[in-house]
Amino acid sequence: MIRVGINGYGTIGKRVADAVAAQPDMRLVGVTKTRPNYAAEAALRRGYDMYAAIADRADEFDAAGIDVAGSLPDLLDAVDVVVDCCPSGVGARNRSTYETHGVPAVFQGGEDADVADASFAARTSFEAVRDAAADAVRVVSCNTTGLARLLAPLEEAYGIEKARVTLIRRGGDPGETDRGPINDVVPDPATIPSHHGPDVNTVLPDVDVDTAALKAPVTAMHTHSVNVTLRATPTADAVRDLFAGERRLFVIPEGAGIDGAGKLKEYAMDRGRPRGDLWENCLWAESVEVSGRDLYLFENVHQEADVVPENVDAIRAMVTDVPAAESVERTNEALGVGVESLLSDDGQTCDPIAADD
Amino acid sequence: MIRVGINGYGTIGKRVADAVAAQPDMRLVGVTKTRPNYAAEAALRRGYDMYAAIADRADEFDAAGIDVAGSLPDLLDAVDVVVDCCPSGVGARNRSTYETHGVPAVFQGGEDADVADASFAARTSFEAVRDAAADAVRVVSCNTTGLARLLAPLEEAYGIEKARVTLIRRGGDPGETDRGPINDVVPDPATIPSHHGPDVNTVLPDVDVDTAALKAPVTAMHTHSVNVTLRATPTADAVRDLFAGERRLFVIPEGAGIDGAGKLKEYAMDRGRPRGDLWENCLWAESVEVSGRDLYLFENVHQEADVVPENVDAIRAMVTDVPAAESVERTNEALGVGVESLLSDDGQTCDPIAADD
Repeated sequence: MIRVGINGYGTIGKRVADAVAAQPDMRLVGVTKTRPNYAAEAALRRGYDMYAAIADRADEFDAAGIDVAGSLPDLLDAVDVVVDCCPSGVGARNRSTYETHGVPAVFQGGEDADVADASFAARTSFEAVRDAAADAVRVVSCNTTGLARLLAPLEEAYGIEKARVTLIRRGGDPGETDRGPINDVVPDPATIPSHHGPDVNTVLPDVDVDTAALKAPVTAMHTHSVNVTLRATPTADAVRDLFAGERRLFVIPEGAGIDGAGKLKEYAMDRGRPRGDLWENCLWAESVEVSGRDLYLFENVHQEADVVPENVDAIRAMVTDVPAAESVERTNEALGVGVESLLSDDGQTCDPIAADD
Repeated sequence: MIRVGINGYGTIGKRVADAVAAQPDMRLVGVTKTRPNYAAEAALRRGYDMYAAIADRADEFDAAGIDVAGSLPDLLDAVDVVVDCCPSGVGARNRSTYETHGVPAVFQGGEDADVADASFAARTSFEAVRDAAADAVRVVSCNTTGLARLLAPLEEAYGIEKARVTLIRRGGDPGETDRGPINDVVPDPATIPSHHGPDVNTVLPDVDVDTAALKAPVTAMHTHSVNVTLRATPTADAVRDLFAGERRLFVIPEGAGIDGAGKLKEYAMDRGRPRGDLWENCLWAESVEVSGRDLYLFENVHQEADVVPENVDAIRAMVTDVPAAESVERTNEALGVGVESLLSDDGQTCDPIAADD
């Protein structure tokens, strides 16, 4: 059993904790929090051992009636690997602590790429990360993860001459009351390309991709408007079939009545997904259009969820010999990731529901 | 076993279906939908028998690969009671159909009060509805339900001279992409009082209450700014204790770090609530203020969820002899409704978490 610690129990940390706890070959040793708020209380109710992220705040937990099992160093001494889910930038400051304790660490995509020895996306760089025998690996961000999953099969099947993506990013997560914008769509950054294209190249080096990013006053999901100039001229149906074969892509059937992030989340909750999480890229079947060698489509990425299975696979890539495909399959099965499990029992992902609704 | 049918499987219908299916003394016979969209598909995966709400559309379900067990008349012939969860106004048109089939019906608060023989809120009018032996009962709206739950204990404990409530209503539900406003707070109606005060009086006749309502560009919850002029001068702590004794009120502890609807929903999802539902009024402990005889507070009401346990109780009030308290307790237990189950194991609802966080 791989003993896993989670440092930071926010949006990503709480989800990675649940995902680790669900794996047959992993044991969640504990999680850290900086303060004893509602999320700490909920973690305890899930039976997770709580460690104080900042040692001299342990008495705050005592005062709140929350037993702590120790502080971060105690957790590090008890695990085989730590997943850093701290706010962006804090992870970089934590790296030396992890090194001092000799614990391999998985970082999140909010950190700069140089926080770690290698960047990770399960679809494109599992083997490379294992071969690098890195002690520190960064799972790329939600947007980059989504793009890697989308572009990799296109590159393999048709070759990519150039990808151009506009990212309409959510302003903040649902609980982040201090984020914006509130009534604007803001180029962010206003310079083009954004960092996302280069970040894709950390896990998919040979694809030429430019990205332009904005922020919108929404909280549920990011939206990508994608153009890929291919080196071949497949039909739109062939591209849909290609995507349908990728378990971490969900091709939303035309006629399902899902017109945006709100209904996507509603569907996830209808299906009993924990926290309404969508681990898959969600792309609209009817948006897939091929004009000459130009492919177009819209997809949404759930910023709270899509990197979660990636973190699980990153752990296996670092500290086990489980082959990539087996790890991904194990993760998918344990969590219930997959297009098939979303909309069809027989593996047919298009048209389980009338297209002429 | 009470055999229950749900006519209309939208925001409320899908939740009432789940709640009915969870009751030890009820059997969900089936649900109706007008078209075979993503929600219909998800209902089938839950094992619910599907009936075509509009008989001549049954072939659309066939075309979508969704087996239907029949159409609405077939469902009505197989149940002891039907819960109408159709869009506002459609319920009134359905009443004669239910009467023709001799099936008692529960309607929703979007209908006018005269759609039914009596209005229902479990806290205030369970016995009155039973005594009326009504064949048609209307569960009052989410806002009215929330106000009845809040005002009833205050009336009983202190007497209410006058209640004045400003309702900042959500513009639409999360999946409703065609609703507004998008960047405004709109008096709605601009006339004061709004209909909510009189609607409270359908279930709590003797309380003098004026309401003013607006719509805001949010989707998660309604917010109430409440003033109640009491006939006594309790301390704020006494009022908090009073509320803590009401299982369908959730007194959000100060220091829990929950500052709005986003974090309330996050907490509900952290706790594994289905769909992140909050069946309880959610009121902020630190907002409870008493100045002379004037009580003030803020509370949120989850428009998708708070009427769900009420519908279950309405069914028992109409077609069983189960006493009110026992029905409410049974509903709460089956669903997991309750302040205690939310934040404390020992029934202490204030300060399970440090207030000085």
